[in-house]
Amino acid sequence: MTKQTIYYTLTDEAPSLATCSLLPIVRTFTSAAGIDVQITDISLAGRVLSAFPDFLTEDQRVTDGLAFLGALTQDPNANIVKLPNISASVPQLKACIAELQSQGYKVPNFPEVAHNDAEQEIRARYSKLLGSAVNPVLREGNSDRRAPAAVKQFVRKFPHSMGKWSMASQTHADYMRGGDFYSSEQSVTVDEPTDVRIEFVGQDGAVSLKKELSLEAGEILDSMFMSAKALRQFFEDSLNDAKESNVMWSLHVKATMMKVSHPIVFGHAVTVFYKDLFEKHGELFAELGVNPNNGLSSVYESIESLPRSKREEILEDIHACYENRPEMAMVDSVKGITNLHVPSDVIVDASMPAMIRNGGKMWGPDGKAKDTKAVMPESTYSTIYQEMINFCKTNGAFDPTTMGTVPNVGLMAKKAEEYGSHDKTFEMMADGTMRVVTSDGTVLMQHNVEQGDIWRACQTKDEPVRDWVKLAVTRSRQSDTPAIFWLDRNRAHDIQLIKKVNKYLQDHDTSGLDIRIMTYVEAIRRSMERMVRGRDTISVTGNVLRDYLTDLFPIMELGTSAKMLSIVPMLKGGGMYETGAGGSAPKHVQQVEEENHLRWDSLGEFMALAVSLEEMGIKQNNPRAKILAKTLDEATGKLLENNKSPSRRTGELDNRGSHFYLGMYWAQAVVAQTEDKELAALFAPLAEAMTTNEDKIIGELAAAQGKPAELGGYYHALRTNVKKVMRPSATLNAVLAAANAQR
Amino acid sequence: MTKQTIYYTLTDEAPSLATCSLLPIVRTFTSAAGIDVQITDISLAGRVLSAFPDFLTEDQRVTDGLAFLGALTQDPNANIVKLPNISASVPQLKACIAELQSQGYKVPNFPEVAHNDAEQEIRARYSKLLGSAVNPVLREGNSDRRAPAAVKQFVRKFPHSMGKWSMASQTHADYMRGGDFYSSEQSVTVDEPTDVRIEFVGQDGAVSLKKELSLEAGEILDSMFMSAKALRQFFEDSLNDAKESNVMWSLHVKATMMKVSHPIVFGHAVTVFYKDLFEKHGELFAELGVNPNNGLSSVYESIESLPRSKREEILEDIHACYENRPEMAMVDSVKGITNLHVPSDVIVDASMPAMIRNGGKMWGPDGKAKDTKAVMPESTYSTIYQEMINFCKTNGAFDPTTMGTVPNVGLMAKKAEEYGSHDKTFEMMADGTMRVVTSDGTVLMQHNVEQGDIWRACQTKDEPVRDWVKLAVTRSRQSDTPAIFWLDRNRAHDIQLIKKVNKYLQDHDTSGLDIRIMTYVEAIRRSMERMVRGRDTISVTGNVLRDYLTDLFPIMELGTSAKMLSIVPMLKGGGMYETGAGGSAPKHVQQVEEENHLRWDSLGEFMALAVSLEEMGIKQNNPRAKILAKTLDEATGKLLENNKSPSRRTGELDNRGSHFYLGMYWAQAVVAQTEDKELAALFAPLAEAMTTNEDKIIGELAAAQGKPAELGGYYHALRTNVKKVMRPSATLNAVLAAANAQR
Repeated sequence: MTKQTIYYTLTDEAPSLATCSLLPIVRTFTSAAGIDVQITDISLAGRVLSAFPDFLTEDQRVTDGLAFLGALTQDPNANIVKLPNISASVPQLKACIAELQSQGYKVPNFPEVAHNDAEQEIRARYSKLLGSAVNPVLREGNSDRRAPAAVKQFVRKFPHSMGKWSMASQTHADYMRGGDFYSSEQSVTVDEPTDVRIEFVGQDGAVSLKKELSLEAGEILDSMFMSAKALRQFFEDSLNDAKESNVMWSLHVKATMMKVSHPIVFGHAVTVFYKDLFEKHGELFAELGVNPNNGLSSVYESIESLPRSKREEILEDIHACYENRPEMAMVDSVKGITNLHVPSDVIVDASMPAMIRNGGKMWGPDGKAKDTKAVMPESTYSTIYQEMINFCKTNGAFDPTTMGTVPNVGLMAKKAEEYGSHDKTFEMMADGTMRVVTSDGTVLMQHNVEQGDIWRACQTKDEPVRDWVKLAVTRSRQSDTPAIFWLDRNRAHDIQLIKKVNKYLQDHDTSGLDIRIMTYVEAIRRSMERMVRGRDTISVTGNVLRDYLTDLFPIMELGTSAKMLSIVPMLKGGGMYETGAGGSAPKHVQQVEEENHLRWDSLGEFMALAVSLEEMGIKQNNPRAKILAKTLDEATGKLLENNKSPSRRTGELDNRGSHFYLGMYWAQAVVAQTEDKELAALFAPLAEAMTTNEDKIIGELAAAQGKPAELGGYYHALRTNVKKVMRPSATLNAVLAAANAQR
Repeated sequence: MTKQTIYYTLTDEAPSLATCSLLPIVRTFTSAAGIDVQITDISLAGRVLSAFPDFLTEDQRVTDGLAFLGALTQDPNANIVKLPNISASVPQLKACIAELQSQGYKVPNFPEVAHNDAEQEIRARYSKLLGSAVNPVLREGNSDRRAPAAVKQFVRKFPHSMGKWSMASQTHADYMRGGDFYSSEQSVTVDEPTDVRIEFVGQDGAVSLKKELSLEAGEILDSMFMSAKALRQFFEDSLNDAKESNVMWSLHVKATMMKVSHPIVFGHAVTVFYKDLFEKHGELFAELGVNPNNGLSSVYESIESLPRSKREEILEDIHACYENRPEMAMVDSVKGITNLHVPSDVIVDASMPAMIRNGGKMWGPDGKAKDTKAVMPESTYSTIYQEMINFCKTNGAFDPTTMGTVPNVGLMAKKAEEYGSHDKTFEMMADGTMRVVTSDGTVLMQHNVEQGDIWRACQTKDEPVRDWVKLAVTRSRQSDTPAIFWLDRNRAHDIQLIKKVNKYLQDHDTSGLDIRIMTYVEAIRRSMERMVRGRDTISVTGNVLRDYLTDLFPIMELGTSAKMLSIVPMLKGGGMYETGAGGSAPKHVQQVEEENHLRWDSLGEFMALAVSLEEMGIKQNNPRAKILAKTLDEATGKLLENNKSPSRRTGELDNRGSHFYLGMYWAQAVVAQTEDKELAALFAPLAEAMTTNEDKIIGELAAAQGKPAELGGYYHALRTNVKKVMRPSATLNAVLAAANAQR
């Protein structure tokens, strides 16, 4: 079934628009190699629809694309190109539902609080769609991410801007020094398959079962908790310190992906910052169903139903809060949208690199860039950002034209260290003890907890670790680059991992390789010291750092993580080729709607497709696939060289024009190759037609820009509208149709 | 000759006053063990007098104490207790000369510029007295410095205050990123004895000899230069950056010890900061003999002879300079004395730790503590301060009650890395080439230089390096503490040293020891990471870092470097026991003159004497010396325990009272010991008399305080006056006399 098929995901926002323009071009090429490119819908809207067939009419129902791809990952021939998708927060999910309902899909509302079994069931179905729901299903392998040589070369020639760092910058990372997950973590490795129960023991001795788990032999299980009291005290101290030091305050969490724990953390920030407001109106807010975990926007929404005078009183009380608090970093200073408005706006792995790239500055309420206290409560990983900030203060901004690269080999397979660990994360409803108990009653780990504390467990199976070590050694050998395992010898979980790493390293010939184990801070410092001297260092990390570092370093090196090559060599033998992150995608769609200009850069897709085709060529013994891979890489190189990437400015070349150039260069490269003359001949007319019509096509594409575009939806745009918007060049469409008619 | 003799130095300022009170007590003890304590005068005034016998009357002439001690260092039985002395700057030397002249000593004036051979000869004699002139003569061994256990224990119980560090602090170290000694350093090791010439080759090809050197086999010779242009541009940029960033500007050099190079660096800072002033009045200043290397005070002094209107114009122009410059850190904000007033006020190895201990703040013109840009132009060692600043911003101030210790083993013997290298430092008078050439014409090293550049060479003999490695291994073994060689693998000189260290480490059994070689920044980071976790790490460093680190760490750990135990195990077998640094000594004398209160803490002398006596006991097989050493240590511990150290406040216990308590505790400890009953009996009357008269003596000592004291001089106080001031308790004097009469 997967033979000679590339499964190309249809996702959300800008990437899904881009797909509509790119795929017709791509298929013109792949069909010549007998390769089918199939679209699989894993968009948030698609997942909502597929989750509620019972609420839809027959013809509204859609199949579950994610389930299909999930099954496919077990196929040794699986070849999936995965584009960035939404990790939905509750507000995003609600907006998506509302949009679908407005389009006539009678999907149910999301019950914030379930009042009965029916609502409970609906809530459970929706919960599976929240946050990072797609990746854990598809990532059936570890992660191999790197900056392709062509991109690195391009950046050295055309570097992105880097904000200046002042030695006197006041910016810093602030994090808890106790009471957080880091300080409470416990970890065990079970030798044999073991069933465990996660239990809460109340102060009256009553035991309630929270979760049962079946651990495999060699599996690591961690448990840890964050004290709500300590967290709230930390927020209060941190706000006071920012006020005193006269720096802006900003909060950096990952409420979208860490969908259970981080909205709670975010909610505490909201209720501490707006302490006076919540103290005064607590009862009313409870009645209204205000949920601070959804941000201050929840207050704004909830009070809309109140009488005007009451509403104005509350708005005044909100404003009064700002008097006693430091300035807050803004998401949109014009619209007055702060860092605490909704939990999905500021996402640590994107926001911290953006700040560091911008000379340590974020945007203030007055629209000016300012130094900030960047608050990341949980200390486990925050320390690396502080180390980088100190490094930039000392050595100045990184220089993209000379710096080395830090590729990543990340532990990820079988939900290893799936740190959201949603089904094993609990907010404590009372004081008591959380414990992990085996079936024979042995208590493996336990914590005394208080009401409000956030407790969680985390699993890491043995096979992924072994595969990860192998991948690290392979990458170090293949690229002749030192590798550092980022493992903290002071951290319970990492102590278990270090044992495994030392064990599995012995399975490999590491002679002549420089492979070290260092704490996160030691590792980032060494990597940076090497980087500024133009040297490369592979970061071999757990799952969270994989996520963070593959934004952090690419954003310094390349200006974006979207230009990274991201491969998941799957445990079962297949491959998934991911394309860049969609950090700023919402802004992109807005620009399309207002000015019909799509700034999204499909470079990630070009590179992923090339690796996808190359692997297809090797595994299916398809020489044409190999030629297409090679020529696609050449075309991408030429596109970069000639600066035919999308501009951010309306009126200039956008995503669609960039796709045209990729197609033209690709066709030219196929014609120019001599390995398969028949293939060259086959593409000659296409190359000719594209080359001849370049000006005309670019003119048509440019003419489309400047006026509003009607997509018919944000989460569930109408395909006919999208097609009209994304394929506006009649000439290009005709050229492609002619080529396809030939096949 | 040295048998059973401790040579105790008479130095300057507060330490020399303290000696007058302490020695009578000490001698009461040592005489009982057949040990003579001899005073040797190495004060600045004493050295001036001994350098000019031909200008003095017969009875004014003094012997050359320094030359005497220099010879003594070659004696295997040498036992020298060395107190802190003045490293004289030119203004200090001139003040000393003026004082001697006022006392009737007809020593000649210091010729700033020599106009004839006679003046040239006088200038040459004086030049030998400038800067760090004493230590290189006496330090005929490497350095072993550590915080005694009793002191560490005392501090854990009675910690000194530490300023709070803000995470948002703007303080930072600023240093050159090129054009300095670090970036130009070249280094060679000669295999055989080699004669070399240091030559300047002018642009016309003319060669002039600057210096001839005879290198030993295995000796390392470095050469390097600092670009005057780059330095001045750095100062200008740094001033502008401070102004823009709104932080104070401060300069940290070591013009006293680095008496040739650093006054020039300091002078550039003065003429860049007051650029407009020196541009406008350049010609006049040249006529007046203004020397910016002596600070802005040189301008103030020189213009005194001008007509009032001209003087006022210049003063206005000075003030106008402040408009365009950042605020400057003040030495004395009340008196308006800035950082650039005289070159001897701010000394990097004392000023940087003081700033870091004070939460990164220095004193502003308004008397307020503020964040500062701490400028240390030469980057070689400045980076460690920036690393510590970043560490404190991230982790907060160090905690003296829990922190570990960083003892030092320093390379110092035979003027190794004598980084002042005064006789091999040259300010370039023209553009050209500086080169080091062997007698057969081989060019070992060369640099293209420009007028104004500062070029210097530096020697390190092989034997001291071998001894240093041995001392490091010995200390690591004896104290079971990891040792780090602070050596920069990117630095020319250190590359040579690393070879030797790796070679000589093989001479020792290092099994079970943790000995590493790390760059300065790596080393300080590792030492700090261990230190905050209560762990100790020996720093094994070159000469400059020895100097810097034995202030830096002690000031964090103990609040002062004066409490360090400082031993020089001499190459020839003798020992020199140094007592703490005299960083704040001038203020001490001032307080005596105004209020007859001496805050100087002789703890360093107590500890040095104990080691001196212990070594005497071992080498001379003198069991009583060993008992005196042991009981002195007990007395010191008790003194700390009972908080009988001098207070800073007039009216409270001062240096003299502290000496009394030391004597009383010491006598009590000798009486209490049972090893030598005869000795115990001998000291019973003294212990009894001191114990009985405690209140009376303390009362007499207290009564002396509060009124001005007439010392009869600063550099050359009159001994009779000093004796009167420092021994005001008739009761104590009588008790000591009675004890001595008994011996």
